[in-house]
Amino acid sequence: MKIAIIGLGLIGGSLGLALKKNGAHSLIGIPRDEKTLQKALALGVVDEGTTDHLRGVKEADLVFVCVPINLIVPVVGEIAPHLKKGAIVTDVASTKYEVVTRLEKAMPKGTYFIGGHPLAGKEQFKIDAAEAGLFNDRTWVLTRTSRTSQRAMEKVTEIVRLIGAKPIELEPKTHDLVVAAISHVPLAVAVALVNAVSGEAEKVIMAQCAASGFRDSTRVASGDPILGVDIFTTNKKAVLKMIGSFKRSLSSLEGLIKEGNGEKIREELARAKQFRDSIYG
Amino acid sequence: MKIAIIGLGLIGGSLGLALKKNGAHSLIGIPRDEKTLQKALALGVVDEGTTDHLRGVKEADLVFVCVPINLIVPVVGEIAPHLKKGAIVTDVASTKYEVVTRLEKAMPKGTYFIGGHPLAGKEQFKIDAAEAGLFNDRTWVLTRTSRTSQRAMEKVTEIVRLIGAKPIELEPKTHDLVVAAISHVPLAVAVALVNAVSGEAEKVIMAQCAASGFRDSTRVASGDPILGVDIFTTNKKAVLKMIGSFKRSLSSLEGLIKEGNGEKIREELARAKQFRDSIYG
Repeated sequence: MKIAIIGLGLIGGSLGLALKKNGAHSLIGIPRDEKTLQKALALGVVDEGTTDHLRGVKEADLVFVCVPINLIVPVVGEIAPHLKKGAIVTDVASTKYEVVTRLEKAMPKGTYFIGGHPLAGKEQFKIDAAEAGLFNDRTWVLTRTSRTSQRAMEKVTEIVRLIGAKPIELEPKTHDLVVAAISHVPLAVAVALVNAVSGEAEKVIMAQCAASGFRDSTRVASGDPILGVDIFTTNKKAVLKMIGSFKRSLSSLEGLIKEGNGEKIREELARAKQFRDSIYG
Repeated sequence: MKIAIIGLGLIGGSLGLALKKNGAHSLIGIPRDEKTLQKALALGVVDEGTTDHLRGVKEADLVFVCVPINLIVPVVGEIAPHLKKGAIVTDVASTKYEVVTRLEKAMPKGTYFIGGHPLAGKEQFKIDAAEAGLFNDRTWVLTRTSRTSQRAMEKVTEIVRLIGAKPIELEPKTHDLVVAAISHVPLAVAVALVNAVSGEAEKVIMAQCAASGFRDSTRVASGDPILGVDIFTTNKKAVLKMIGSFKRSLSSLEGLIKEGNGEKIREELARAKQFRDSIYG
């Protein structure tokens, strides 16, 4: 099976390393520029490469599109007419409803699109940060809709398992609400925490005193701002819904602090600790 | 110099290990119960110990009070009349204004109180989690007021330096606002993030998909709920002020997401990234 990867940043690069480590061959990398291509070849991320999308995907059985969210639809639109019959395209974008709805309609007959999202990442987002183990034991969401080809879903599931990730199937809208809750709202909150501190007169002392708690609470605010923009613009509805849930949850705690209601504060904190410990125990 | 430590949890225990590692001798531990005392002696946290406060502090030149916030004032009230002349008492509580104001007035003539707060910690809070390096390179706030004895401040500063921490002096009220911003509001926010997720119908899938971002964003919500209650009840004013700043900061981002204003969202995210990277980068 020939696999092509369009976009060789952290995710595309790590995917290449993971596929090669697990025995994939005929791996072709299609980065944005020649410099990244040379780096990818030097790092052993892919077997061969080109910066020409059409040439790169021509013989591919499976194409991973690992470009920023806002480029996925144009890139797939460009390659779709040139795919070979039976080819499967999948992506890795953090939001799914918009992308999946548009691409399922756009695929030519005999080619297939499966929306995907590996729940893995870090602050660095270039190929230099790529690692073969990035997806180990991580959940990799695949989206199923009424248009989904069973064969294509099975093929992508098999590859996701091959590189050590744990595939789960969700509807695109459910996916978007889930990641709003566990990823996008935490990002908005981290950004707001940092900007609240930097707006205070005491910000210099605050920065000096900031320890591991603030570091971890705000870690995601050091990610790529462009990815954040893509997330907040393509997953607006679910993000706003979950910001609403978060604000109600915070206001409830704020009210108890105002009252000085120690017993109820303890209950809120114990409830959070219990749920969180059940996830990360 | 004889040093006594009242309370042998994570902080008291780590303090004992750090002091011993850096050459302190005559270190007496005064935990709540006999079981902790035996554990402390076995772990080499102190040289000797007793569960009797009055006997323990009788000959001490310096007493570290490492008990939960709400016990500090009663404990110091109990030991104060029994301290030897010239003795210095210091604490490690996360909030300072209430404790310092009450204790500075309560100290008998010829004995001194210096409020202290090491900015170090982790989720585990018992002696088993104690480590000699917990305070290495960490900021240790000491509070100065118009009543502060210069000699006592110098003595405590010297010991804080001895164990590898970085002492800084702040007024109690400034300290409380600073920790509200970098520690207490992040705790409230982490609790609200977790409780928002656990209130959703999709909470099981959300928990299953939660990855390293959510883990780090909410880490502090797994801390001791009782410490959280103490924090929110003894630092109410500063916490409510900083929750206000945080909510304004989040509402501003929420408004931009509603508008779909990509450029302004990018600016907010880039501003947060820049300030955070200046702290931890």
